[in-house]
Amino acid sequence: MAASPHVPFFDPESPVFRAHEGGKLGVHATKPLEGREDLALLYTPGVAEVSLAIAADPALSMRYTARRNTVAVISDGTAVLGLGDIGPLGAMPVMEGKAVLFKHFAGIDAVPVVMETGTVDELVEAIARIAPSYGGINLEDISAPRCFDIEEQLKERLDIPVFHDDQHGTAIVVLAGLLNAAKVLRRQVPDLRVVVSGAGAAGVAVTRLLQRAGVRDVVVCDSRGIISVERQDLTGHKSRLAASTNPRAVHGPLRAALEGADVFVGVSGGQVPEDEIASMAPRGMVFALANPTPEVHPDVARRHAAVVATGRSDFPNQINNVLAFPGIFRGAFDARARSITEAMKLAAAGALADLVADDLTEELVIPSPFDERVGPAVAAAVADAARRDGVART
Amino acid sequence: MAASPHVPFFDPESPVFRAHEGGKLGVHATKPLEGREDLALLYTPGVAEVSLAIAADPALSMRYTARRNTVAVISDGTAVLGLGDIGPLGAMPVMEGKAVLFKHFAGIDAVPVVMETGTVDELVEAIARIAPSYGGINLEDISAPRCFDIEEQLKERLDIPVFHDDQHGTAIVVLAGLLNAAKVLRRQVPDLRVVVSGAGAAGVAVTRLLQRAGVRDVVVCDSRGIISVERQDLTGHKSRLAASTNPRAVHGPLRAALEGADVFVGVSGGQVPEDEIASMAPRGMVFALANPTPEVHPDVARRHAAVVATGRSDFPNQINNVLAFPGIFRGAFDARARSITEAMKLAAAGALADLVADDLTEELVIPSPFDERVGPAVAAAVADAARRDGVART
Repeated sequence: MAASPHVPFFDPESPVFRAHEGGKLGVHATKPLEGREDLALLYTPGVAEVSLAIAADPALSMRYTARRNTVAVISDGTAVLGLGDIGPLGAMPVMEGKAVLFKHFAGIDAVPVVMETGTVDELVEAIARIAPSYGGINLEDISAPRCFDIEEQLKERLDIPVFHDDQHGTAIVVLAGLLNAAKVLRRQVPDLRVVVSGAGAAGVAVTRLLQRAGVRDVVVCDSRGIISVERQDLTGHKSRLAASTNPRAVHGPLRAALEGADVFVGVSGGQVPEDEIASMAPRGMVFALANPTPEVHPDVARRHAAVVATGRSDFPNQINNVLAFPGIFRGAFDARARSITEAMKLAAAGALADLVADDLTEELVIPSPFDERVGPAVAAAVADAARRDGVART
Repeated sequence: MAASPHVPFFDPESPVFRAHEGGKLGVHATKPLEGREDLALLYTPGVAEVSLAIAADPALSMRYTARRNTVAVISDGTAVLGLGDIGPLGAMPVMEGKAVLFKHFAGIDAVPVVMETGTVDELVEAIARIAPSYGGINLEDISAPRCFDIEEQLKERLDIPVFHDDQHGTAIVVLAGLLNAAKVLRRQVPDLRVVVSGAGAAGVAVTRLLQRAGVRDVVVCDSRGIISVERQDLTGHKSRLAASTNPRAVHGPLRAALEGADVFVGVSGGQVPEDEIASMAPRGMVFALANPTPEVHPDVARRHAAVVATGRSDFPNQINNVLAFPGIFRGAFDARARSITEAMKLAAAGALADLVADDLTEELVIPSPFDERVGPAVAAAVADAARRDGVART
């Protein structure tokens, strides 16, 4: 294929394009096919027996098909990384990358499914229709607020795990970091005053999970400032946020929320000036997760906060979803869980936090993505929680 | 998982169930992921460049994602093998088996997609929505007559190959066998009187492809007998068949059609008594393709016909779709074909027939599925035909 010189960033000789040449995934048979006898076992006529058995007892599909270990990584390409709505074809390399991570970190077979976007109902309909192909569904890079309804409706309809990683993966890793940050700073989690900047997929999920973990005082800000019941412009998930957060009923811009706060969680992509960080309570915690440019540079944040985390691998305390999603699905699959519950998410965060153990310092509140203990530890905690929570089948 | 003793044919210790334990497919990364540097190339931040490039020039998705070599094997489980409507979960082992064959015979990465059934519009809608994930679509085991409209509509909407194997795979291999049978019997294809028993997916496609190959006299029978313009009970595809076949305007039961016929193609699953086969013209050809029980036993047919073919591997002249579909998609992918045209199907049949070459006898009109020349020969012929037909992109 000839080069397309008018495309932005397109340099076929650059390392990143060379690494993507031909795509990043392949499919292979797990059983030998060496001649007519194998063909008669794996395909007709033998396969008919297995098909009939599954038709009579659908649970057998989790034993006799690859579905048992397969996650669909599904996106409509409407909110890809920080790039926005670039469509399903543009989303594909990200979904393939995610599938590579599922395999590497948890031994899970993941297949990308990118789809033309549509209404919530259309997307739910399409995903539910193909769901029998998979053991679990990882939603990815679907724009807010549609992503909330899509996940919610799929969870109601399907009896396999459904997990929107942009929401819950981020929330789990943030909570893990927060648990350890509180520990090293000798603070009690329920006493922390937390400010979440961003009311999209990640902001909403971080808020909910921190509340489940016991945080009482969370103030969420969107681009217009603090979300409070006084705001007249809120609908849907933001009006629900207004009702369930901001117990001190503060209002005004982000600056007003940050004054005296113990924790800043940035999932907005905006920038926060140094003096606003400086106005936080002493020995605070800053999670500036915008990628590739954090809301505040970690060196700047470190002048005022005791624990600083970002999404970047070139600074301490990297908050990376890959710490969570492979182990979450591994644990859910190992327990044959029907769904991923709040207790399973809390267990994942706890297991992640515990891995740091005696190495805990202000500069090390979260394990490295390449710490090989991560996937198995998260998986074990998640599977246990699934069994305690009554959603496991084994 | 405990055994389910009430399930028909379910014996977890039998060879076929042991061969299916855990499923038959896996997904793997084709690029190394060894540390943070690889992660930054294959996933964030590097992947963003590739995503942006594809969003700007969608054709690049065929270079930089696994889509280029991926076929979706799609079924709603409404007509699985000879088992009927056993649903998507029951269909899954067959689709996985098909994917194993795609890989083995053509190096194609195939992923099963089984879906809850619905109306033609609903299925077309769901398949078209997920189509950006794939380089081609192999429809499988979808009941007639819905399968005709579904394929037709998808072909119109999508710019990737769409191929209903139960129709065209069967038709291509039958035509290949017929070409060689005519050759060994020194008959001209246009002069043959052909009877097709069965007016479902395979029967319709066999009829159309034989007509394209020059056969003028095809009589099709359904369970009520010969399809003719005199029949008052015909609608849709059967009324179109009535208009385009049966030039001598015969009517009555299958028996009436077979008298004096040169070729019998059975794709019905019914049984044909020996005396009806005996009533065919001398030195005829019998393709009794019902599986696992041919319409007439090959030993019986051989008493009356010169060439006998079945779907079975334990008799000569096995008509097996695996001779066609891997090479068809390999050729279409190699040529980056936008669709699979009639010329490509004819080319595939011709290439298959030619492979027998000097070995041609009445007992050997079609190559073995395990003849390693088959996939490459079909692929080369199909890619050439795509280029001549103007549907190739390379």
